[in-house]
Amino acid sequence: METGTETGFSYAEGGVTAPFGFLAAGVSAGIKKSGKRDVALLISEEPCPAAAVYTRNSMAAPPVQLTRENLSAGVLRAIVVNSGNANACTGPQGLADAQAMVDATADAVGCEPSQVAVASTGVIGAPMPMELVLAGIREAASRLDSAAGTCAAEAIMTTDTFLKEIAVGVDVEGTRYTVGGMTKGSGMIMPNMATMLAFVTTDAPLTSAACDRVLRSAVDVTFNRVTVDSDTSTNDTCVLMASGAAGGEPIDVGDARLTPVSDAIHAVCGELARMIVRDGEGATKFIEVTVRGAACDADARDAAMSIANSPLFKTAIFGRDANWGRVAMAVGKSTARVDPLKLEVIFAGITTCLDGTAVAFDEDAASAALALNDIEVIADLHLGEGIATVWTCDLSYEYVRINGEYRS
Amino acid sequence: METGTETGFSYAEGGVTAPFGFLAAGVSAGIKKSGKRDVALLISEEPCPAAAVYTRNSMAAPPVQLTRENLSAGVLRAIVVNSGNANACTGPQGLADAQAMVDATADAVGCEPSQVAVASTGVIGAPMPMELVLAGIREAASRLDSAAGTCAAEAIMTTDTFLKEIAVGVDVEGTRYTVGGMTKGSGMIMPNMATMLAFVTTDAPLTSAACDRVLRSAVDVTFNRVTVDSDTSTNDTCVLMASGAAGGEPIDVGDARLTPVSDAIHAVCGELARMIVRDGEGATKFIEVTVRGAACDADARDAAMSIANSPLFKTAIFGRDANWGRVAMAVGKSTARVDPLKLEVIFAGITTCLDGTAVAFDEDAASAALALNDIEVIADLHLGEGIATVWTCDLSYEYVRINGEYRS
Repeated sequence: METGTETGFSYAEGGVTAPFGFLAAGVSAGIKKSGKRDVALLISEEPCPAAAVYTRNSMAAPPVQLTRENLSAGVLRAIVVNSGNANACTGPQGLADAQAMVDATADAVGCEPSQVAVASTGVIGAPMPMELVLAGIREAASRLDSAAGTCAAEAIMTTDTFLKEIAVGVDVEGTRYTVGGMTKGSGMIMPNMATMLAFVTTDAPLTSAACDRVLRSAVDVTFNRVTVDSDTSTNDTCVLMASGAAGGEPIDVGDARLTPVSDAIHAVCGELARMIVRDGEGATKFIEVTVRGAACDADARDAAMSIANSPLFKTAIFGRDANWGRVAMAVGKSTARVDPLKLEVIFAGITTCLDGTAVAFDEDAASAALALNDIEVIADLHLGEGIATVWTCDLSYEYVRINGEYRS
Repeated sequence: METGTETGFSYAEGGVTAPFGFLAAGVSAGIKKSGKRDVALLISEEPCPAAAVYTRNSMAAPPVQLTRENLSAGVLRAIVVNSGNANACTGPQGLADAQAMVDATADAVGCEPSQVAVASTGVIGAPMPMELVLAGIREAASRLDSAAGTCAAEAIMTTDTFLKEIAVGVDVEGTRYTVGGMTKGSGMIMPNMATMLAFVTTDAPLTSAACDRVLRSAVDVTFNRVTVDSDTSTNDTCVLMASGAAGGEPIDVGDARLTPVSDAIHAVCGELARMIVRDGEGATKFIEVTVRGAACDADARDAAMSIANSPLFKTAIFGRDANWGRVAMAVGKSTARVDPLKLEVIFAGITTCLDGTAVAFDEDAASAALALNDIEVIADLHLGEGIATVWTCDLSYEYVRINGEYRS
């Protein structure tokens, strides 16, 4: 949250409906057997510039395929989301179902189907209960409200244990712009992207090109820097809509006013991404892994991801063990250039390895530091200026339980 | 074992000392606190052709660096191994210690230091207890025996729960050649290579070039096709020594007699590799993952590895869940070319997904099939002729326990 004061923005209440010009709803349509909310609708009062980033998984689900097509013009009026069923690996019927969701939404809110984005999350490979879904969309449309962002955030949750939304405000030449966001995690999390849906709204008057530029740069250093288990979902989608409802001249790429708005969008995406990791399946620790001193940033990112994805590293943190040998192993198996005699590893502020070899350290102090919920691990390659930070969680018994019993 | 009859070789008793011309020893030097054997010596009666393959981890441990240097001439007399301490991340002192192990071995068996390979396995980053190690080497040299292969196999074990050795015989133009091998696993297992030491001997008169050719091709489809947890160790080494003691003219690359010997070496490496997976940390299942119908073999291999390394797939198998959606996800996140509408997934003989969508199947029958210890999973991409098989194990509570508590 420190970044807020540095770059001039402040945190605000709410999520996707905190900016002007947005309405949302979240209803229970009966897709989830639990009876919890499972259909969300998010609309801009007018069609508005938008951009999105999608999973790179080549088994991309029908909703992803359809949203990619609809968003090619860079304009959206509505986003419809269901949880409880991913509509993935559902073949031609899945595509028809996604289209039916889009059509029903366009009909209910009064826009072109091409102005609707659709996303689904939940079980893979099960047919969509379309009667429930369509009734849910109609009900959601009747409940749209500028104060219902939190209901929508609830309706996109799957195995999430807490609701994830945030909003920040930023003053730009006398106009206050707000950025809001909601997301859901929490397993199958690995770039690009996580099983993750994220929706970001702003009332700043960004153009479609500006939306696209800012969203891509923000996702690259936020959602694409979190990993729970190295698995990449078929459905990941992150959408940004800019209503422009706070007023002002359009802000395009190159406009100086884009910088503070971009900073606010980065901050929202960063907070949402870190929430996903904190809610990682079975996670007991939030781990920030930084690799610095790499030959270049790409090396640093690859080495940091290699550490963050190592099951041996993650189980060591679960066991409160400052096992720097596993960090050395993970750095070594990455593609990063490494000098084995220069590696330094720091666990929670305690240097455990210097010049590639063991350093005497107080094991009790280390255990105490590793008992905290937030752990910072730094690997310094002492080769150059490359640096990257990724966020992950530990690997616990609970992860095995959740994923060994998910369907049974 | 079926392959034995097909290609004309048969299984024999013992391990690395089953072929003529080799002596071994395994002693307890006190490096392991448990008092179990921890120093192994394996020698050829005469200097002989040899080859090796090493970890690609760029934090390669000092013994790996030194063995690579010594083996550059393709001739070995002795291999010395200690378990209990990996001599990894030990800096210049580690290299001096590895050299001291080589010198002590050369001295004890009467050869050039450059004819000695050295390997270490165990804890990373701890200084080597050299007094114990050197005394152990001297004792091992005094106990060398042509019937002590099993003692050596015991002395290279770390977290292994069973001893891993095998031998096969093959008749080539009237001469019987034997191939023997021993290996150790079992965590941090991922190409290239696993935390894995493997030593293969034969009394066939292979040249150094033939050793190198055959070992590389064998490792590529055996040790490099097993993965326990996607982590790659700093110490992996696989060495082949060919004593030639069974007689016959030298067998070089291109010699027709090389084929049956190569088949036998492949079989030994394959059996040893599968033993490592069966002994994977916390494993309750042995999983054979085959991807077929891929656009090319490289695509098949990448997709198969992606499945085998997926924590979500591995926990599903642990939970006896024919969760083909996770196979689809893992195929999709790999670099393999995929048509989402052509994927077929078969769990233990039961087709669960066809044309990229769900197929009705008997969930009880599937659960019963997945209750077995050996599980075969096939993903058919229906695109081409590419095929690859990899072996892995499930991800259990026990894996988390072992690796969360390894040092504590």
